[in-house]
Amino acid sequence: MNYADYLKLGTLLSLQDPESNRKGKPAHDEMLFIVIHQAYELWFRQILYELDLIQDIFGGRVVDDADLGRAVNAAERIVRIEQLLVAQVDILETMTPMDFLEFRDLLMPASGFQSEQFRLLEIRLGLKREERLPFNDASYDASLEEPARARVRAAEERPSLREQVDAWLSRTPFVDHGGFHFRDAYARALEEMLAHDMKQITDHPHLSQVEKDVQLASLQKSRAMFDGLLDDARYEELRAQGTWTFSRRALQAALFLFLYRDEPAASAAFRMLKALMDIDETMALWRLRHALMVSRMLGRKVGTGGSSGYDYLRATADRHRAYNDLFAIATFLIPRSALPPLPEDVRRAMRYRYEA
Amino acid sequence: MNYADYLKLGTLLSLQDPESNRKGKPAHDEMLFIVIHQAYELWFRQILYELDLIQDIFGGRVVDDADLGRAVNAAERIVRIEQLLVAQVDILETMTPMDFLEFRDLLMPASGFQSEQFRLLEIRLGLKREERLPFNDASYDASLEEPARARVRAAEERPSLREQVDAWLSRTPFVDHGGFHFRDAYARALEEMLAHDMKQITDHPHLSQVEKDVQLASLQKSRAMFDGLLDDARYEELRAQGTWTFSRRALQAALFLFLYRDEPAASAAFRMLKALMDIDETMALWRLRHALMVSRMLGRKVGTGGSSGYDYLRATADRHRAYNDLFAIATFLIPRSALPPLPEDVRRAMRYRYEA
Amino acid sequence: MNYADYLKLGTLLSLQDPESNRKGKPAHDEMLFIVIHQAYELWFRQILYELDLIQDIFGGRVVDDADLGRAVNAAERIVRIEQLLVAQVDILETMTPMDFLEFRDLLMPASGFQSEQFRLLEIRLGLKREERLPFNDASYDASLEEPARARVRAAEERPSLREQVDAWLSRTPFVDHGGFHFRDAYARALEEMLAHDMKQITDHPHLSQVEKDVQLASLQKSRAMFDGLLDDARYEELRAQGTWTFSRRALQAALFLFLYRDEPAASAAFRMLKALMDIDETMALWRLRHALMVSRMLGRKVGTGGSSGYDYLRATADRHRAYNDLFAIATFLIPRSALPPLPEDVRRAMRYRYEA
Amino acid sequence: MNYADYLKLGTLLSLQDPESNRKGKPAHDEMLFIVIHQAYELWFRQILYELDLIQDIFGGRVVDDADLGRAVNAAERIVRIEQLLVAQVDILETMTPMDFLEFRDLLMPASGFQSEQFRLLEIRLGLKREERLPFNDASYDASLEEPARARVRAAEERPSLREQVDAWLSRTPFVDHGGFHFRDAYARALEEMLAHDMKQITDHPHLSQVEKDVQLASLQKSRAMFDGLLDDARYEELRAQGTWTFSRRALQAALFLFLYRDEPAASAAFRMLKALMDIDETMALWRLRHALMVSRMLGRKVGTGGSSGYDYLRATADRHRAYNDLFAIATFLIPRSALPPLPEDVRRAMRYRYEA
Repeated sequence: MNYADYLKLGTLLSLQDPESNRKGKPAHDEMLFIVIHQAYELWFRQILYELDLIQDIFGGRVVDDADLGRAVNAAERIVRIEQLLVAQVDILETMTPMDFLEFRDLLMPASGFQSEQFRLLEIRLGLKREERLPFNDASYDASLEEPARARVRAAEERPSLREQVDAWLSRTPFVDHGGFHFRDAYARALEEMLAHDMKQITDHPHLSQVEKDVQLASLQKSRAMFDGLLDDARYEELRAQGTWTFSRRALQAALFLFLYRDEPAASAAFRMLKALMDIDETMALWRLRHALMVSRMLGRKVGTGGSSGYDYLRATADRHRAYNDLFAIATFLIPRSALPPLPEDVRRAMRYRYEA
Repeated sequence: MNYADYLKLGTLLSLQDPESNRKGKPAHDEMLFIVIHQAYELWFRQILYELDLIQDIFGGRVVDDADLGRAVNAAERIVRIEQLLVAQVDILETMTPMDFLEFRDLLMPASGFQSEQFRLLEIRLGLKREERLPFNDASYDASLEEPARARVRAAEERPSLREQVDAWLSRTPFVDHGGFHFRDAYARALEEMLAHDMKQITDHPHLSQVEKDVQLASLQKSRAMFDGLLDDARYEELRAQGTWTFSRRALQAALFLFLYRDEPAASAAFRMLKALMDIDETMALWRLRHALMVSRMLGRKVGTGGSSGYDYLRATADRHRAYNDLFAIATFLIPRSALPPLPEDVRRAMRYRYEA
Repeated sequence: MNYADYLKLGTLLSLQDPESNRKGKPAHDEMLFIVIHQAYELWFRQILYELDLIQDIFGGRVVDDADLGRAVNAAERIVRIEQLLVAQVDILETMTPMDFLEFRDLLMPASGFQSEQFRLLEIRLGLKREERLPFNDASYDASLEEPARARVRAAEERPSLREQVDAWLSRTPFVDHGGFHFRDAYARALEEMLAHDMKQITDHPHLSQVEKDVQLASLQKSRAMFDGLLDDARYEELRAQGTWTFSRRALQAALFLFLYRDEPAASAAFRMLKALMDIDETMALWRLRHALMVSRMLGRKVGTGGSSGYDYLRATADRHRAYNDLFAIATFLIPRSALPPLPEDVRRAMRYRYEA
Repeated sequence: MNYADYLKLGTLLSLQDPESNRKGKPAHDEMLFIVIHQAYELWFRQILYELDLIQDIFGGRVVDDADLGRAVNAAERIVRIEQLLVAQVDILETMTPMDFLEFRDLLMPASGFQSEQFRLLEIRLGLKREERLPFNDASYDASLEEPARARVRAAEERPSLREQVDAWLSRTPFVDHGGFHFRDAYARALEEMLAHDMKQITDHPHLSQVEKDVQLASLQKSRAMFDGLLDDARYEELRAQGTWTFSRRALQAALFLFLYRDEPAASAAFRMLKALMDIDETMALWRLRHALMVSRMLGRKVGTGGSSGYDYLRATADRHRAYNDLFAIATFLIPRSALPPLPEDVRRAMRYRYEA
């Protein structure tokens, strides 16, 4: 066992072969371009590998609590890797547009759009074909060659992590436990909060009727918003319109976990949701850094793969996200003082057995 | 002289007074909220202080070469500070929406929109009132109180750094030097490059007429694009439409500096332009991180200052930028092989005198 | 409620008063020097505030599991803040030695050694007076003025977080549970592992007696090392010599938590230990960055407070650490395959009550 | 041209082959261990490639001013890459000691000590065999296999960047220009400054003779220190003792560049020196992060390659540095007010020719 053999360095370090050298017009910065993209692909490989573990755990009928901890660790590791991917952009920005121009034409029509691993990553996290932005009137995998395209399509057929997490959340035990039904308890707490607010407005000694009407209308709006999460029929309606992606049960369970995350049995699950949000947000940041870098490199030109560049990449940062629903949960939180206290039997169930 | 007195720590460390404590409902995380915003304001103060130096240097009739170096250092320091401001968001994200909710209502209607220093920073970098996105149908300074609003308006009356840089670029000596006129030389080089490309297409033995037509149309488009920078009348037309902000002379000089940045006398000027782009881009990144953080904290609710939150902040990242023109220059670069060589007298003028 | 009043910006932004201005020899970079140190002190304030919460939780007779989660969050937030403190050094490094020299003499004999908050932070994390490196033949608080010095000394009298964590670890319930005694089970597992290794060496068909003796000696060394943790008398001996700081029970419990961290009831406790190690390591990194920066600024001169500069600061990075013992635990880990499995009743006790 | 072919992804992504899988005892985290080390080696490759450019430029008889700018860019890029290498440690720290233990024994005796590229990097930057710390009583390249060892030894025979920079600095034109001799002018300025200080002490109305003696002794010490740089014989003496590595002419030129860096012709040279210091310091930081990570992973055990681990790595951070002399220059700076002004002809020589 020897370092170079273990890491297969002989081969690894022979894979950088600038096109500009082959064409007899060496461009110094092409080496950086190759090395940084190879580093990206190595890290994509690692992210997919961590996703294997997470999806194995969430793909089962039950997620064992010890396994959940391991999945959280893997998800938090993915976040760290993504943060490095963002930081790597700093290095690419040491290349100026003029340097890029020296070899750019030689690469056409190759393009980052052809990264199979990146597509697999998006798909496995949960991005759906129909949620993708159209790009130059072609499907996103049009520029992939076979058999990469077939592999990408096969991945689309398998359950994504988002779907697995949905099923797992839907099974959360405490949301309905004995006589406790979280949805109802939360709806009642909201009703009381809103009724209290309404009475405060109606009885206010100094507000004019016009001012009261404005504030009451705003209350009405809040109620409608909460219905969008808590009312079954309304939820399905919104889901059909694309406002929600997760199932109603899953999202209500996620809300429960946000609210009661301090209870031991909610803690690891809450960390898992937080890690998914971090994965989503850091990926969005990477897309943004990528977009800004492209704008810097190309100005208003089109990309090597023919992309309209900045605008498209910029838009994917907002739109190609798999866990928007989790971010939306913040909309539905209420202050701790208004929160329905957990019944003692639910609270006890969420504690460790060793406690007396 | 003593550390605590020098830094006025007695006062500094007494300025954190959580509203939730005063109201008798202590919320642990409000302290972080105060400290991080105070840290932001301290750093805004430092950025404005560095801008003082830079604007003093660029505000004069001539920018001395030794002073230019000092201005570049100050601009690069601003970039570093902005990078720290971006990193600070990581700390704020350790606060969860539920923690924020504990004290959020107590702050209304106070809002980051009321940061005078941030407004001054935007204005002094070059953002114009008319370039700002409308916000809740009110002018951006509506929520500022006097005398802050008056100070902000006074700053709008003074020349911004963008205007000073425009004037400085317009004076760049080598752009027209002896018989050398950069604009003409560059236009000729482009013409030759395009003519060569056209001939290659027309004479191509294997392309069909349809294919030739497509490629010739694309060439025509490139020529029109270059006219947008190099043709005086066309430039002014586009500038009137808002495509360009800088004056034509300034932007052509910037292009010259991008192309010949390796020449000693272009080097510091090019670094200044690069630092301005970095300032612009890092500020955009900060806006984005801020927007993402707000979306995480509030979901689809409105901000404490009544802002429609995420969407507005998100949009400012794209639109509230002062140096977009410099990013656009990348569009107009051509490969070194097609670049007009500098006449010997120009090249010599751009070198140090010590050379024989 | 208004942004500027809430943050007390009127006062905050008036506290930057460069000495070089007062002396009529304005030095541009003194402002940065003041602002960055004020930002450091703001963040020290926040760290101390988070330590209040953590020490309140660990200072009680029992640490409730829900509270432990909150303590972990606060500890992880401290790590994030420390990472920012490290990143801030990047900004200070934009100041060159020549710039510093312009105002350095005006500050003497003020020095960062006089930061009361930094001393409190060290003390409260667990650093003891007798563990500190001597500095210029004076006690570390000699340069503090009253009443700061009295406050620092009072803090030394109160239990530090390290002591509180020691007491908490010593109470870990599963380490001795029913018939299970972790120390004994672990010692037996080690004994078996070592016996197996010894037999492999002794029976080895190809090794010479000399080679066997070398390997057996190495085994003997391993056994002695393990005794240093598991044998009561030996542990106390080593503790008296300063090799260990934590009590034997606490450290064995920490080892238990490292080994069985995947069990739900160990998970939050393990994260707490990890956060303490991160706090320790990031603080060490900050000391190192600080030392390197000082070496850059002063070369081989002495600091404004008379410190022998780089060497002292450099050494504190290694020596002024409170949680070295936790790092040493890695020495005593054995592979999972050799690990004694937890008895079923212990394993069950570490699970949530809701599980069937 | 296609993305996967261009980057040779088919091969690249087949080079991760965990030993634990081959041995039938899969350890999840070994993949991370492989990927991160491969990423490190890719980046080492890029650093060596940038060093090729820099050494080509500095290896010539003259460094053209336009080329110097390119060398500075390459050096600044190396700094960025090193910063990424430091950040990568964060990812490795998501692996716990227990996870590492699962596959650690399988790797023996492979070790990072066998990284040929890292050795080349150290050598080419300027680290000498005789400056290296002894390691386990063997030369640092003992664990390298042929032909790697031969390549490393060949690299030791070629001029390092430090030697090339030494030669380049020694040729700095303005240090002796016409009647101006920087060393003499600086020595005179120092003499005056010290004489002035001495008179102030001697004539002081309130100081006791004892106090005066103390301060005069300190002045005497300063003078001796300056002699260590400015006196030829004393310099060579100190150099023989290892206090200085650079030649006297080179180091005095570096001091000149530090002092007059605002002059255009000094600016790029000063940035080059600053980049070399950044390279040195960031490499030291990486060694430190590496050492801390090893201490976390192994506690007090020895490394896979048999290294005594933490202590050795820790010590290399201080000792394996190539540009310590440049850091020491800060010792010899004097305030601008005491600085000898440049004669007008020198100042003019350092300006661009375009000025009237």
